[in-house]
Amino acid sequence: MRSFCLTSVIRILLWSVIWLPIISSAAEDVPLSEETEACILCHESINSGIIHDWKNSRHAQITPAAALQKPALERRISNEAIPPELASTAVGCYECHSLNTADHADSFEHFGYEINIIVSPKDCQTCHLEEATQYANSKKAHAIANLRENPLYHTLVQTTLGVQSYDETGWTHAAASGTTENETCFACHGSEVMVLGMRDVETDFGEITVPHLANWPNQGVGRKNPDGSLGACTSCHPRHSFSIEIARKPYTCSECHLQPDVPAWDVYQESKHGNIFFSQQDQWNWTHVPWRVGQDFQSPTCATCHNSLLTDPSGETVIAERTHDFGARLWVRLFGLIYSHPQPKTGNTTHIRNKDGLPLPTAFDGEIAAEYLLTPEEQTERKNTMKRVCQPCHGPSWTLGHFAQMDSTLAETDQMVYAATQLMQQAWDTGLADPENPFDEHLEKKWVELWLFYANSIRYASAMCGQDYATFKNGWWQLNQNLEYLKTVIQNDSK
Amino acid sequence: MRSFCLTSVIRILLWSVIWLPIISSAAEDVPLSEETEACILCHESINSGIIHDWKNSRHAQITPAAALQKPALERRISNEAIPPELASTAVGCYECHSLNTADHADSFEHFGYEINIIVSPKDCQTCHLEEATQYANSKKAHAIANLRENPLYHTLVQTTLGVQSYDETGWTHAAASGTTENETCFACHGSEVMVLGMRDVETDFGEITVPHLANWPNQGVGRKNPDGSLGACTSCHPRHSFSIEIARKPYTCSECHLQPDVPAWDVYQESKHGNIFFSQQDQWNWTHVPWRVGQDFQSPTCATCHNSLLTDPSGETVIAERTHDFGARLWVRLFGLIYSHPQPKTGNTTHIRNKDGLPLPTAFDGEIAAEYLLTPEEQTERKNTMKRVCQPCHGPSWTLGHFAQMDSTLAETDQMVYAATQLMQQAWDTGLADPENPFDEHLEKKWVELWLFYANSIRYASAMCGQDYATFKNGWWQLNQNLEYLKTVIQNDSK
Amino acid sequence: MRSFCLTSVIRILLWSVIWLPIISSAAEDVPLSEETEACILCHESINSGIIHDWKNSRHAQITPAAALQKPALERRISNEAIPPELASTAVGCYECHSLNTADHADSFEHFGYEINIIVSPKDCQTCHLEEATQYANSKKAHAIANLRENPLYHTLVQTTLGVQSYDETGWTHAAASGTTENETCFACHGSEVMVLGMRDVETDFGEITVPHLANWPNQGVGRKNPDGSLGACTSCHPRHSFSIEIARKPYTCSECHLQPDVPAWDVYQESKHGNIFFSQQDQWNWTHVPWRVGQDFQSPTCATCHNSLLTDPSGETVIAERTHDFGARLWVRLFGLIYSHPQPKTGNTTHIRNKDGLPLPTAFDGEIAAEYLLTPEEQTERKNTMKRVCQPCHGPSWTLGHFAQMDSTLAETDQMVYAATQLMQQAWDTGLADPENPFDEHLEKKWVELWLFYANSIRYASAMCGQDYATFKNGWWQLNQNLEYLKTVIQNDSK
Repeated sequence: MRSFCLTSVIRILLWSVIWLPIISSAAEDVPLSEETEACILCHESINSGIIHDWKNSRHAQITPAAALQKPALERRISNEAIPPELASTAVGCYECHSLNTADHADSFEHFGYEINIIVSPKDCQTCHLEEATQYANSKKAHAIANLRENPLYHTLVQTTLGVQSYDETGWTHAAASGTTENETCFACHGSEVMVLGMRDVETDFGEITVPHLANWPNQGVGRKNPDGSLGACTSCHPRHSFSIEIARKPYTCSECHLQPDVPAWDVYQESKHGNIFFSQQDQWNWTHVPWRVGQDFQSPTCATCHNSLLTDPSGETVIAERTHDFGARLWVRLFGLIYSHPQPKTGNTTHIRNKDGLPLPTAFDGEIAAEYLLTPEEQTERKNTMKRVCQPCHGPSWTLGHFAQMDSTLAETDQMVYAATQLMQQAWDTGLADPENPFDEHLEKKWVELWLFYANSIRYASAMCGQDYATFKNGWWQLNQNLEYLKTVIQNDSK
Repeated sequence: MRSFCLTSVIRILLWSVIWLPIISSAAEDVPLSEETEACILCHESINSGIIHDWKNSRHAQITPAAALQKPALERRISNEAIPPELASTAVGCYECHSLNTADHADSFEHFGYEINIIVSPKDCQTCHLEEATQYANSKKAHAIANLRENPLYHTLVQTTLGVQSYDETGWTHAAASGTTENETCFACHGSEVMVLGMRDVETDFGEITVPHLANWPNQGVGRKNPDGSLGACTSCHPRHSFSIEIARKPYTCSECHLQPDVPAWDVYQESKHGNIFFSQQDQWNWTHVPWRVGQDFQSPTCATCHNSLLTDPSGETVIAERTHDFGARLWVRLFGLIYSHPQPKTGNTTHIRNKDGLPLPTAFDGEIAAEYLLTPEEQTERKNTMKRVCQPCHGPSWTLGHFAQMDSTLAETDQMVYAATQLMQQAWDTGLADPENPFDEHLEKKWVELWLFYANSIRYASAMCGQDYATFKNGWWQLNQNLEYLKTVIQNDSK
Repeated sequence: MRSFCLTSVIRILLWSVIWLPIISSAAEDVPLSEETEACILCHESINSGIIHDWKNSRHAQITPAAALQKPALERRISNEAIPPELASTAVGCYECHSLNTADHADSFEHFGYEINIIVSPKDCQTCHLEEATQYANSKKAHAIANLRENPLYHTLVQTTLGVQSYDETGWTHAAASGTTENETCFACHGSEVMVLGMRDVETDFGEITVPHLANWPNQGVGRKNPDGSLGACTSCHPRHSFSIEIARKPYTCSECHLQPDVPAWDVYQESKHGNIFFSQQDQWNWTHVPWRVGQDFQSPTCATCHNSLLTDPSGETVIAERTHDFGARLWVRLFGLIYSHPQPKTGNTTHIRNKDGLPLPTAFDGEIAAEYLLTPEEQTERKNTMKRVCQPCHGPSWTLGHFAQMDSTLAETDQMVYAATQLMQQAWDTGLADPENPFDEHLEKKWVELWLFYANSIRYASAMCGQDYATFKNGWWQLNQNLEYLKTVIQNDSK
């Protein structure tokens, strides 16, 4: 590493002259710590996007001490025991990036300050304790293990992402590369960010030495951070705006929950709920806490039904409690593996085994692995929580009718998947396909598409009212087409 | 049914104390009827979404009598003979839900008031007579019969939605369930809402007795209501905002008119018209009546071309009359059954028979069932109406060129469908497929996709300028791919 | 042609009375030329959309002379030598439509004025010289020739768009019609607008005589105009608003750069960048020149990364120079023909030949046609330009990690395409497919989809962070599915 040179120091001093007045005026009444002022001094010039994001954020505009003065339902911080040294300044660069450095493999000395590159949920919980705790128990927090440590899903990942090549000896199917995993499955599920050592990088102020991170960048929901914690709050509250508005809008969820396998976003777009959102969102209040149904918005987004703190227009009667365990209001898992089934009891699902010993919540004949899944009573309780969310806008006949339709659709799609699985079993039994890896052959992929894409889509469309989606887009039509194709090939049945 | 209990009464009284001042302030200058005030008293607390939707709506902000004072072109109500008892209060809960109760199988006694659950077009026509009359003659109003009472389409629905199962005796294809029909085809087309009797439901105020509706919820365009009327105004003016803004925005139409079978929305998104809408819609006036081209908006939405009352910027010269018969400006039906053809003369199309006696507007060789369809003169007249809509933004060379391209594309796609149908006929003739049900086998589905998805898509892309859509998205590429596949399988022709 | 009749004159006079006050008030302080006032006199009534677009545009609100007074970085015009007769009035109808009439085959006499129908880049360069010059050297300007004059691509176009028909003698594959070409491939690439002569058209003011244009309407990026120039500024700055806002928003690029072949838009929608754009665009400044990162916007659109003039929040330090050669910041071409490869050195790519003499930038074995493509040094320089665009929001670890992932993905997708191409070569060698036209058979189309849709999509998803897109939407899953299908059919290998 070359030493940090004199020119760089001069550049920094020059920047100070230009930027200092701007910094002061930006944070007007809310005092900044000296350390944060030092951060901004350089980074305002090279990272204007980051600094301005933060300046527009709530973190720059209120101190934790002032935030704690709010009435309970209006509070955005859930830890009442804020460390005194953080209470009375804005939540600036240094306040977050200097937390728990001893735990952080990515901590390093940077111009006299010990800081971490990554701010993890464990750091955020300094103020947002309840949210971090809920999240830690969610399926999202365990998204890496739930995918990677499940042998079946691991095979699916490797089969899908491993590069194939061909020569005179035949076909080779390589293991998936880490870079491709990080860009695809694990971009949503999260990567394990590791510190490989230190390295020198070029900057506008000359060369500096920073931790060399592997599996980075990544904002996946189950990201394993260099302090051992799981999750990335920036998945939904992106980067330095920490925005509740962005998290409440469906574009955030749409980054991962989309067609063809988890088409929540696509169905929402086609739904009446989506229509009203797209047509009138500009007139709504996206930042009020609590979120008042009718007063602040007129149609739900993902966050409304799944995790926001909802009240009536007065802001005083709670309709639904805030939760950052995003499955907490769900009673059934739609995206069927391979059938729909009750939600798992725990966020970590790696221990689930069906009656045949496979790491799946159902057997191939549809029987659920009941001991790992919600009981019918627990399901009913959660369904009732969800029904309360419907109530401000829908009478009881409407809501009852909707959920009855959905129950029927889950049963029907499971039945269709069962029929296709019987066909596939014939192919495996007769040698038309090799059951060792159930995901790698043409016919097997047709079977996978049938449940992973089409049955899933019909279920999502039922749950969220996406009529055309379930019919012709990625639904009954395609499910039947794949089934007929399997029939034609496996049973040699043109009819 | 358990009796309505004392606790409930106390709860209501408590709510009154909290909500009464809010109600009064909300409806400031426009008087509410006593009945509507009574509705709000309870429902504000349990249905805050509904009440606030209505409060923000025009219905809460002007009386019919005042609305009638507007100049003719600015009026949103078309019946000048408003019943005197409705003229001088806001159009509140009771004003709509108490209309024509004698005709409503869903009317019931609710805390001393006789009301209907569903407000139907026949009720809305009390003020919106012209709109209801136009609508009643449209294809939309007859959307249930047009699908269900046409034997061929009925077969398509049953084949697509019926659950299949398999055992040692072979395959069983069940009839489609009502719940699945209501969530898919008939979610757009409409369900027949029936009253099965009364039932008890739990509410925040205790158990109450309400009509038990079958095929509900539903907002399909051809919904058969418990008063016998057809249609749901809420399809496009959702629920209690009755919004003209939402109806004018393309998100509304996109709920049903979308890919792959009717990709109007998808093509719009890719078009120049769509681009300008998405980029600048925030700066437009979405509620002005009449809708002034150039002044209120700079690019058309679905409503602009198909049904809105359009004027020049002065608001005085009419460019196109308002119509709620949504096919009234259309001369040709694009989504081809199986070929494109002149629009039918009437909204109810169940009586159409082609020369072979099939309930289709064309024969399999393309010949149109002329007596049921618009004459060339009627087509020209409608095309000219549409051309006037183009004129404020496009010179005559542009418009003429556009429609000439479209004519050519209709002919070409029909020709491609004819070639594929000849192939399919070979398959039927040779026993490779069974013509009894032309929609249920793998090959037949490939043929259906060819016209229902791909030829349709090319036609929509031509009509609405979605260039890439017609090429690679769901257009010429896919149409050819399916055709080549049929060739390969049916003619055993690798080339 | 019938003579322009008296009634029409009277109608015009009547319109004058109505519209003159409106015209005057609209253009308040900025003087209009007499000629433009004359244009508006008639066209305000028949083309209110056009006139109001223009009135809201910058062209109506500032004179070129005043625009030139702005500091250099704030200027939107790049030619300092504006003709004196244009300097001191608004840029109105006549100012643009009367330029260089001698060069315009579409010029004609219109009520005493010599005007052109089409305003071409050569006309726009009167004020926007630098933009027009950059554009003329871009691939976009040569989009017609690059497609039509490349024998292979030409075959692809003809195969895809030509109508097929069938009779007892077998199949006929006609040449693509001009109308279909103009609505599909050449709607984006551009058509050659030709003047066939003059013709009479009906207008509200009677019949008038105007040039009869062939291949019109068209706004493709490489449009060949009747003055011989290439391009249509209206592709991105639509029609008479000449809007920089629309051009900066991604909806514009989305008209052509979308799935399945060039899914830039679709990937952007799923990305974090897209999420932030959709969630907060209403709060951004879309018209400020220069475009200040952090100050004016918080997340990039297409224009940000590819062509806008970017500065820091002060508006004084340039981060990236403006360019209207839209490939100028690109080092690699993703959409692979059939492999990814360095960007070509020149906008016109018709002269490129691979080592086998084919008009492709790579050979079928992947070797690049190096002499026609950027050198590694030129690639690095461009990549560094792009990295500077990332810097305001991303630290060096983030940026380095991102581009390393992308490099890996390009190599992997190229490897997968190579494997598929080896399979296809077997099919051609064994007569299972006919290599004469490599695009027309079922199997060949499966191979084309593999690289044109799926490998391309994975590359775009890598470049622009569209995680799910690369996995299941149109990515690794589909690429593998097509590969397995080719294996099954070509190698008769069920496994």
